Amino acid sequence: MARYDFASDNVAGAMPEVLAALGRFSCGFEPSYGDDSVTARAADLIRGLLDVDAEVWFAGTGTAGNALTVAALAAPHEAILAHEHSHLATDETGAPGLFGAGVGITGLPGGAGRIDPAALLRALDQGDSSHHQSPAALSLTQGTEFGAVYAEAAMAALIAPAKAKGLAVHLDGARLANAVAAGFDPKAVGRLGVDVVVLGGTKAGSTPTEAIVLIDKSLGRRFGARLKHGGQLTSKARFLAAPWIGMLETGAWSSRAAHANAMAKRLAAAMPFPITHPVEANGVFVSMDEPTLRRLHQAGWAVYRFIDGSVRFMCSWATTSEAVDQLASDLAQLA
Amino acid sequence: MARYDFASDNVAGAMPEVLAALGRFSCGFEPSYGDDSVTARAADLIRGLLDVDAEVWFAGTGTAGNALTVAALAAPHEAILAHEHSHLATDETGAPGLFGAGVGITGLPGGAGRIDPAALLRALDQGDSSHHQSPAALSLTQGTEFGAVYAEAAMAALIAPAKAKGLAVHLDGARLANAVAAGFDPKAVGRLGVDVVVLGGTKAGSTPTEAIVLIDKSLGRRFGARLKHGGQLTSKARFLAAPWIGMLETGAWSSRAAHANAMAKRLAAAMPFPITHPVEANGVFVSMDEPTLRRLHQAGWAVYRFIDGSVRFMCSWATTSEAVDQLASDLAQLA
Amino acid sequence: MARYDFASDNVAGAMPEVLAALGRFSCGFEPSYGDDSVTARAADLIRGLLDVDAEVWFAGTGTAGNALTVAALAAPHEAILAHEHSHLATDETGAPGLFGAGVGITGLPGGAGRIDPAALLRALDQGDSSHHQSPAALSLTQGTEFGAVYAEAAMAALIAPAKAKGLAVHLDGARLANAVAAGFDPKAVGRLGVDVVVLGGTKAGSTPTEAIVLIDKSLGRRFGARLKHGGQLTSKARFLAAPWIGMLETGAWSSRAAHANAMAKRLAAAMPFPITHPVEANGVFVSMDEPTLRRLHQAGWAVYRFIDGSVRFMCSWATTSEAVDQLASDLAQLA
Amino acid sequence: MARYDFASDNVAGAMPEVLAALGRFSCGFEPSYGDDSVTARAADLIRGLLDVDAEVWFAGTGTAGNALTVAALAAPHEAILAHEHSHLATDETGAPGLFGAGVGITGLPGGAGRIDPAALLRALDQGDSSHHQSPAALSLTQGTEFGAVYAEAAMAALIAPAKAKGLAVHLDGARLANAVAAGFDPKAVGRLGVDVVVLGGTKAGSTPTEAIVLIDKSLGRRFGARLKHGGQLTSKARFLAAPWIGMLETGAWSSRAAHANAMAKRLAAAMPFPITHPVEANGVFVSMDEPTLRRLHQAGWAVYRFIDGSVRFMCSWATTSEAVDQLASDLAQLA
Repeated sequence: MARYDFASDNVAGAMPEVLAALGRFSCGFEPSYGDDSVTARAADLIRGLLDVDAEVWFAGTGTAGNALTVAALAAPHEAILAHEHSHLATDETGAPGLFGAGVGITGLPGGAGRIDPAALLRALDQGDSSHHQSPAALSLTQGTEFGAVYAEAAMAALIAPAKAKGLAVHLDGARLANAVAAGFDPKAVGRLGVDVVVLGGTKAGSTPTEAIVLIDKSLGRRFGARLKHGGQLTSKARFLAAPWIGMLETGAWSSRAAHANAMAKRLAAAMPFPITHPVEANGVFVSMDEPTLRRLHQAGWAVYRFIDGSVRFMCSWATTSEAVDQLASDLAQLA
Repeated sequence: MARYDFASDNVAGAMPEVLAALGRFSCGFEPSYGDDSVTARAADLIRGLLDVDAEVWFAGTGTAGNALTVAALAAPHEAILAHEHSHLATDETGAPGLFGAGVGITGLPGGAGRIDPAALLRALDQGDSSHHQSPAALSLTQGTEFGAVYAEAAMAALIAPAKAKGLAVHLDGARLANAVAAGFDPKAVGRLGVDVVVLGGTKAGSTPTEAIVLIDKSLGRRFGARLKHGGQLTSKARFLAAPWIGMLETGAWSSRAAHANAMAKRLAAAMPFPITHPVEANGVFVSMDEPTLRRLHQAGWAVYRFIDGSVRFMCSWATTSEAVDQLASDLAQLA
Repeated sequence: MARYDFASDNVAGAMPEVLAALGRFSCGFEPSYGDDSVTARAADLIRGLLDVDAEVWFAGTGTAGNALTVAALAAPHEAILAHEHSHLATDETGAPGLFGAGVGITGLPGGAGRIDPAALLRALDQGDSSHHQSPAALSLTQGTEFGAVYAEAAMAALIAPAKAKGLAVHLDGARLANAVAAGFDPKAVGRLGVDVVVLGGTKAGSTPTEAIVLIDKSLGRRFGARLKHGGQLTSKARFLAAPWIGMLETGAWSSRAAHANAMAKRLAAAMPFPITHPVEANGVFVSMDEPTLRRLHQAGWAVYRFIDGSVRFMCSWATTSEAVDQLASDLAQLA
Repeated sequence: MARYDFASDNVAGAMPEVLAALGRFSCGFEPSYGDDSVTARAADLIRGLLDVDAEVWFAGTGTAGNALTVAALAAPHEAILAHEHSHLATDETGAPGLFGAGVGITGLPGGAGRIDPAALLRALDQGDSSHHQSPAALSLTQGTEFGAVYAEAAMAALIAPAKAKGLAVHLDGARLANAVAAGFDPKAVGRLGVDVVVLGGTKAGSTPTEAIVLIDKSLGRRFGARLKHGGQLTSKARFLAAPWIGMLETGAWSSRAAHANAMAKRLAAAMPFPITHPVEANGVFVSMDEPTLRRLHQAGWAVYRFIDGSVRFMCSWATTSEAVDQLASDLAQLA
């Protein structure tokens, strides 16, 4: 029987604060499709967290949240610039192309999932042609797919030239809680000129919910209809909103991310294999050959070789220090 | 402060059996994206309910469940035959067209949301041409949008000619629980030759979840990828599956629908306005002029004029007999 | 062997002026994809015809021209208002839904293919909701599908309220030549505030070519890429442009449409069946029962019952007065 | 004033055989949308050329022909395997994603535009997952984008493993005439198990027309509707068909391609820069630094640096030996 603890940060259940909020806000009758008081309250909390005057909606998956919003930022014959290993570019099974009627994703290189500023400049400097999809938006991921966290200045250095070329800016914040727990100021999002944030609830420890934060409020025009058109307007909307009240009123959204980050640091400290990316959030990436990975699997640990060839260990709100120590001990046997 | 009790069957929260299951199955680590034991168990229960050897997946909204599955049954240059007042035809904000790359919906008439068999035959007899979208599938809704329930024979009389013409059959079962509570045998679905059922959890009293039941298992090919492409593959899949365990192991899925239906009968019995459709499930539709509807709103009842001009009152698992009696009393004042 | 003369205005070949231009502009090497001198010259002529400072592109079919441009005017979760019997609404096999990722078409009634202003006002007054596709553009057809021609004032009476509500205006000008020959001033298009015209070449007597006239030049942003994305950026673009030089420099575009209109008037004057729509352009629509239509077919005339139940007779640049007289004589036998 | 002779094979006009056929088949009335005798005759000639019992349609651009047909071979959540530098992968501005609702293109490496068999095997051996688009079809290009021609055995070595895995096979034959002129047997297409060929007319020397040859006739179901849905069903279909009669009855389709190939060989023989790909068809690719390319442009020759970094010289039916010699002489000055 395999242990999935470190396979991903979505193998955990929901934190108690979320389950409590689901029960609490299940009572009574509420208007549907987002006109309810629970949604309003959660939206207020999210505006407060990011210190933005934004329109806030909720989606059931990050894939949908990202695909729907990038499709709102680019015409179908345009493209989104994103890290070549971003979830958007590699792990959505073509969803942006569905929601965006064939919209393009142009991958950019960069270490640890952070886009290389020089590569961005080169992409921005390419002239338009009718024969390729020119960029209309830049998508950033904070924290990155490789457990790194952009410093605010590093993010600004990417956003500024993109904005100067007229591109909109999308932030995939599936792990923004981990970035915030690592020191990234959530209020920077507005300051930096991000137009849309897809704010992660699920990986932070919720039942499925992602918040779509439309900082550029012009994107909000008929957004409810856009969501329904995309199969994402939930009738009992309160159940996508309530978890946010549970996570944000208690501070658990970031405090439990801090725990996840700490577990990753603990694992990194004991890691006998070469670490391939800076451990700044809740993931540890290592270099491991195939026979060793097989033996790790045989030892019962379900972990995966990731897109860059590293083996990935993810921690979550539910990761225990006992599990970390057990894993570290097993790894030590294999090293 | 308006009372939404009768505005829809999605204004209620989640039944206790569902909330309990969410808590119960939140514990521990599970593989994500549907490879978990909770999903497997819920799928087994659904196969048992319908007595079919089907592939079962879950979606977060009925809109997505319907749009994704009809898109799997028809090519983009083909059409789906559906009741002209079905949710698919009138209330999805074009979602089938997104998921189906412009797939068409051809509306058919018929009383109380049931398709008129003669109208279906006429549609099936139209020859193909390159200038319109010929039908590739038939979509039925059980119970209908107007609170009626197809008898098994009536459904068979629609499915047989459609199948004879090579059409696939889709069943929008958003309110199948209410139909079952009204006497429709859920095991008829397989007997009748339905290819896909989108089985309603949400309106039955769950947190958001709909089951996609692929009775024609050839439709299951790479369906996980189809879901992810459509933004519907939930990472923490257990939370879409657990409610089904809560509802089906306890029998609450149909027993609470029976309650909703009984509340509709109670309201119908006391209704002082002309009833416009047979009250066979959980809705009561009446004829009411605009000034009277306004006064009903002023009395605090949030109810809506529906697509056919009737005013609609919906009951749910959470509707109380006290609320029904209060509403009936207020209506008596207005009649 | 059936005679197709009156089956449509697309059963004719190309007028001599077009064939001559194809030969003339085939010589020599030219940049491809619209950067050629032939395209530039044709675009100038079209700007002159309509007296607009527009960006001009060419498409191979009217379906593509219309579908691509309405998709540029509305988001996928929005809709286009169009006459319920317009080509866009009834005869494109769902193409707008493909190019517009599920964009909706909302049909409006009105006699002879002209939209009823009161129906338009009602549609414009409907409030937004997340559950249906609200209108983002109005599409007009000049001349209409039923052989009628909008007076400039009648068109203004539709455009003004649409513009006041923020809608863009699309003109399907597949038969604009016939409308112009009937007295409609082509320069009215700009005055009226139309944003996009799809100007018909094919039905006017060309080899396949339609001009996309972007009067709102902001729509021109990356339009070449939009065309290529839509499969409509022709490499040897000169062959879609040259016919326009042949038709516009000689005046044949409208003078040959005047001939087609005159042939329709000649047929109407001799028509022994009740005429169902005003004969203002190149079509004659009559009331005819099914047995009579069958006998007409047996007499060798390929004509069709149209969407409104009328039988349609279309004239073109190639229709001869002998053919009209022969048809009229055969019809007299059947009446 | 730049000379475009060698910029592409689409900078030439139409060969005399095509212009003659346009004039010849423009006469008289014909049914529209492909039901005409001209279309039937051209389709017969194409079936004869390839020795296949196929359904044949015509499209106005290669982009549309390719995008429409690959969309018919793969579900939206699946992918097409194609050479990483194929037109489909790099030069369609996302058209396959539009027609295929987000269908994926997976690029494979290989010299001179020919797919490396080992790379294909690796791609075929990747297991399915819900998180990426698994391949449903293989697209080959004959002749390749880099002027090479697959031998029949080389093509068979790619098709066999793809077929064994259940993939369909698409052939982009934009330059099939050049491949045939280079010795590739057009009748091999059927023997090899290709399911769909998009047969190039335009680059062969026609006005815009590409033939869609559905060798797997099950793909032909409602294909006229598919074309109209895609904006590609031309009303005056005869004008896309007539050029094929002109080219195939005279043999000009391949004999003029042989001329183009000979011009490329003549240029290659005199080429003072390193040739980067085998010169097997009508293109010559060379290594040239940026300052030299600039001087070549200043000398008046419009040629382009291609996707692999080579500078590309294309010959066509209209290329003259005088032009080749002039270019060679100018190149000699720069070398």
